[in-house]
Amino acid sequence: MFEVRTDLALESKEKFEEDNVEIKGVRVEEEHISRELHVTSVYIDTENGAKAMGKPRGTYITIEAADMMEEDEDYHREVSIQLAKVLQGMLPERKEELSVLVVGLGNREVTPDALGPYVVDNVMITRHILREFGVYAFGNRQTCCISGIVPGVMAQTGMESSEIVRGVIEETNPELVIVVDALAARSVKRLNRTIQITDTGINPGSGVGNHRNAINEQTLGVPVIAIGIPTVVDAATIVADTMNDLIGAMHSSTSLRPVGEGLERLDQMEKHELARELLSPHLNAMFVTPKDIDEAVKRLSYTISEGLNIAFS
Amino acid sequence: MFEVRTDLALESKEKFEEDNVEIKGVRVEEEHISRELHVTSVYIDTENGAKAMGKPRGTYITIEAADMMEEDEDYHREVSIQLAKVLQGMLPERKEELSVLVVGLGNREVTPDALGPYVVDNVMITRHILREFGVYAFGNRQTCCISGIVPGVMAQTGMESSEIVRGVIEETNPELVIVVDALAARSVKRLNRTIQITDTGINPGSGVGNHRNAINEQTLGVPVIAIGIPTVVDAATIVADTMNDLIGAMHSSTSLRPVGEGLERLDQMEKHELARELLSPHLNAMFVTPKDIDEAVKRLSYTISEGLNIAFS
Amino acid sequence: MFEVRTDLALESKEKFEEDNVEIKGVRVEEEHISRELHVTSVYIDTENGAKAMGKPRGTYITIEAADMMEEDEDYHREVSIQLAKVLQGMLPERKEELSVLVVGLGNREVTPDALGPYVVDNVMITRHILREFGVYAFGNRQTCCISGIVPGVMAQTGMESSEIVRGVIEETNPELVIVVDALAARSVKRLNRTIQITDTGINPGSGVGNHRNAINEQTLGVPVIAIGIPTVVDAATIVADTMNDLIGAMHSSTSLRPVGEGLERLDQMEKHELARELLSPHLNAMFVTPKDIDEAVKRLSYTISEGLNIAFS
Amino acid sequence: MFEVRTDLALESKEKFEEDNVEIKGVRVEEEHISRELHVTSVYIDTENGAKAMGKPRGTYITIEAADMMEEDEDYHREVSIQLAKVLQGMLPERKEELSVLVVGLGNREVTPDALGPYVVDNVMITRHILREFGVYAFGNRQTCCISGIVPGVMAQTGMESSEIVRGVIEETNPELVIVVDALAARSVKRLNRTIQITDTGINPGSGVGNHRNAINEQTLGVPVIAIGIPTVVDAATIVADTMNDLIGAMHSSTSLRPVGEGLERLDQMEKHELARELLSPHLNAMFVTPKDIDEAVKRLSYTISEGLNIAFS
Repeated sequence: MFEVRTDLALESKEKFEEDNVEIKGVRVEEEHISRELHVTSVYIDTENGAKAMGKPRGTYITIEAADMMEEDEDYHREVSIQLAKVLQGMLPERKEELSVLVVGLGNREVTPDALGPYVVDNVMITRHILREFGVYAFGNRQTCCISGIVPGVMAQTGMESSEIVRGVIEETNPELVIVVDALAARSVKRLNRTIQITDTGINPGSGVGNHRNAINEQTLGVPVIAIGIPTVVDAATIVADTMNDLIGAMHSSTSLRPVGEGLERLDQMEKHELARELLSPHLNAMFVTPKDIDEAVKRLSYTISEGLNIAFS
Repeated sequence: MFEVRTDLALESKEKFEEDNVEIKGVRVEEEHISRELHVTSVYIDTENGAKAMGKPRGTYITIEAADMMEEDEDYHREVSIQLAKVLQGMLPERKEELSVLVVGLGNREVTPDALGPYVVDNVMITRHILREFGVYAFGNRQTCCISGIVPGVMAQTGMESSEIVRGVIEETNPELVIVVDALAARSVKRLNRTIQITDTGINPGSGVGNHRNAINEQTLGVPVIAIGIPTVVDAATIVADTMNDLIGAMHSSTSLRPVGEGLERLDQMEKHELARELLSPHLNAMFVTPKDIDEAVKRLSYTISEGLNIAFS
Repeated sequence: MFEVRTDLALESKEKFEEDNVEIKGVRVEEEHISRELHVTSVYIDTENGAKAMGKPRGTYITIEAADMMEEDEDYHREVSIQLAKVLQGMLPERKEELSVLVVGLGNREVTPDALGPYVVDNVMITRHILREFGVYAFGNRQTCCISGIVPGVMAQTGMESSEIVRGVIEETNPELVIVVDALAARSVKRLNRTIQITDTGINPGSGVGNHRNAINEQTLGVPVIAIGIPTVVDAATIVADTMNDLIGAMHSSTSLRPVGEGLERLDQMEKHELARELLSPHLNAMFVTPKDIDEAVKRLSYTISEGLNIAFS
Repeated sequence: MFEVRTDLALESKEKFEEDNVEIKGVRVEEEHISRELHVTSVYIDTENGAKAMGKPRGTYITIEAADMMEEDEDYHREVSIQLAKVLQGMLPERKEELSVLVVGLGNREVTPDALGPYVVDNVMITRHILREFGVYAFGNRQTCCISGIVPGVMAQTGMESSEIVRGVIEETNPELVIVVDALAARSVKRLNRTIQITDTGINPGSGVGNHRNAINEQTLGVPVIAIGIPTVVDAATIVADTMNDLIGAMHSSTSLRPVGEGLERLDQMEKHELARELLSPHLNAMFVTPKDIDEAVKRLSYTISEGLNIAFS
């Protein structure tokens, strides 16, 4: 009845399962690393699958780490190692001297959107050292050439992040781009507990088609891996979801069944009108985020930057 | 059906009006300063009124400034002047040399909670200058003695803000305390558009009774004026409100009436069970805030600090 | 006897005057706007002049504003207007719709080096608005297209600022670049009191010759105006300067004359050895800055951004 | 000839050794923990010693860690353990449940002065958890009750840090206060390489006598341990020191001897006049600090907070 929005391929897939809809062209594999660490791989293989999912073809790997909100250093280390493993499986070809640009998207001034900038703050940057001293500075060990950029947000720069990143790539020619961004989930239960790694990059809007503001292999000319953690839920989504739940509850409860049936009798147009009425336009500019988001974002940014440091060291 | 939470006396009052409940012991006065600037005064005169409102006896003045989210300097100046006027009306007695402690509650690291700290950053602090040079430093003009403190949050200090403020007051003996804090509203439409000024201070929980962690005249021994702007809505509140709206819509629409009637047939217990089921416990730790909250909080903190600077200069 | 370093053309010129050396190819014009506001223009006209001054050919205009360290809003406004006037005199041709990229060099994390980033924070950015809504968003008034970037420092990005800026220019094609940076002066008396505006851009090292890391018209292909305020003095410079002063004092005082004469008898090599011995190598990595640098940098960044907003509105 | 200022007892002592002056009432013990880690204990035993040293009677322990400027985690860990050891030796009596207030002096907005605030950011705060859940929250293990405060600087609060700390102590009654502050050294070689731990607290000015703005056992009524790292040198000190070195060099070099002798012939008054002339009054408001101070202060604050976490866990 009400549409929901999510950046997680895993949640898009779940939505279809809820609705008992089978989609062709999408495969799912699950792996339970430990009681508190699950990895789910969603493969969108065909254009039809992409259209249905509202996300481009490619691989979406989700690490679900139930305790990632906690302050447990060993556990975070375990998650970082898992992230490094997933990343290494996605690298175009394993090279000791890969040159990588790490892009931290988002707004440092808005707590739940600061994930990307914080990750770049903590990644080990080597490019300038390698250019000045060569591998000698690293004990003659082959070392990946890591650079980083925080492009900022359009209200501060007047430019799309994609414009800035494209320019930096033209000048510095990295072989791989890693984009880190805070995501929007559909469910508050996933906030700060899930890492999505995808080889499709960042794709604004519906995510299908060649959008100039996308940050992906098509628009940049080099492979792009996007790493994201959901830190917010769109306020409209949370409201819509609760309404769907309310209606669902009406169907399944005996005493509420007549209510549910009443709703069912509404035609499509009436339903849309009801939704428009209830979802205040103010909600579109709002997000939902946990109260301890400052601690969470700091901790999670370390978990990701540590994963990158392990993957590229 | 679902309870809603708000820090605004104005919204508590409106709730009763929605429900067509008359409360004794509460008076309301409204004043339209201009098309875009309304002032509403809620007076809670009796203990009964306080219990009904869930807020202590006292005066709650709300400045509603519809365009306060916009970047219009003249308009913000107008709001600051109005705030100064309201404040001056509340001062224990107008003195040229009042000594005032401005307390900025909240967490500088969480964008919508940074309002209080930012205000203290921009208030003109004079106490140390007066103590070293006297009024000579201000051209021999009588000058209020302004000090400021940002106590931080309990996770950072291990102490209640009220403990820190009480200690500082014992040492420095101000005649008046101004507490600035970000508030929670019930409606997203009020976010960043409303300033509440009250002589009841800050009262955690239900707000009635003498709570040790309160920051008010009873616990501090000096008059306390609290200034707040709602920057968040509790996620549970927004969901509950939408559900109430949904049910309301069912009543008023012909085609949905049977649905509403079905809901009505639920007894109180069934209704509570439904609410508990739908309101995910995760929501309790979540808030809703506008996406442009960083710009908004910076702008609003200037509007308040400017109001204080006008009131005490 | 000891070399001193300064980013200010004005100070390089003064150095020659101190030493009673005439340099050809360098002209100076002075203008006293008010008792507290002087403008000095240094024109380096020839390659010989450039070599002697250690700075590329071009125009260097210095606004000396003795009270710019004070918190006087009207005075800062006056300085901003003067800055706008100087800038407008340097624009390639006065156009109502110039597209300008403002670059904030420096490190936001090091207080005296945060000037550039802070200026970009406060410049009115219009490019994204013009691209989405056209001049309609500005009441159909012709409006300059302003974008901004804070490239960060090499330790954070692994890239030269010049690489990032070059990339951004290739992508977004501005007609003019304004680079804002904190400078090093020779004299502590100039700190936070002087603005230098030059059409030669930013030129690392000796500043002469086509250095790839320069940010100037030669390397970027568009005119570059650099705006800088000295916020630090190199520690080695301050020590060297004091030693020169000590030796100078010895010459001019009767009782010390024999001492000065003693020093004079040292040959060039002995002098250099003495300097090397006294100037601890630790000093090279040190700078001198005022204790109230945080307030100063915030205030000065507003003065510059306001000047830019006036010039391009 | 020129006076120098230092917060390090070690440097005050060295000064006397340079000048070949014996002071009674001051003892020194040295311990070489490793090639890169030296501990020096200076005991000021008598009032005469205190007057000579310009520092109150008490114990001053200095950890010199030559490589503390480097980014070596293991080495920093070693320093943290050494700091914990020194602290434990100073605790009034070793108790498992000591209640401790950690005070972070300084200005978060001025990079080299942010050490204290950053340390409090990273200390493990337990007081609020113990008060709500008791030792149960720590697996029934006896746990020190740690609270923390960042009082801010007088320009921001209008109050002395000592007033705020005194108030907080009256309200919360800790048994021990740890004050962390950035210090001024005499020599740039000591910057970011030295930790001083003293049981005399913080003593402004000459440091002798009962100053109301002191933060020590006399003024607070509980034991106070101060921990400091020099992050700046006063600009006047560095200049004075270089002049002393210059004059020293003149004495020891054959060719310069006449110069030195010339200086020697100056009487005391002439010397003072020379010093006054050379030491620009501007220098008093200036400090010298390393260019990489942002990284250094972050790293060092972790080293100290880790030491505190070890000492009190």
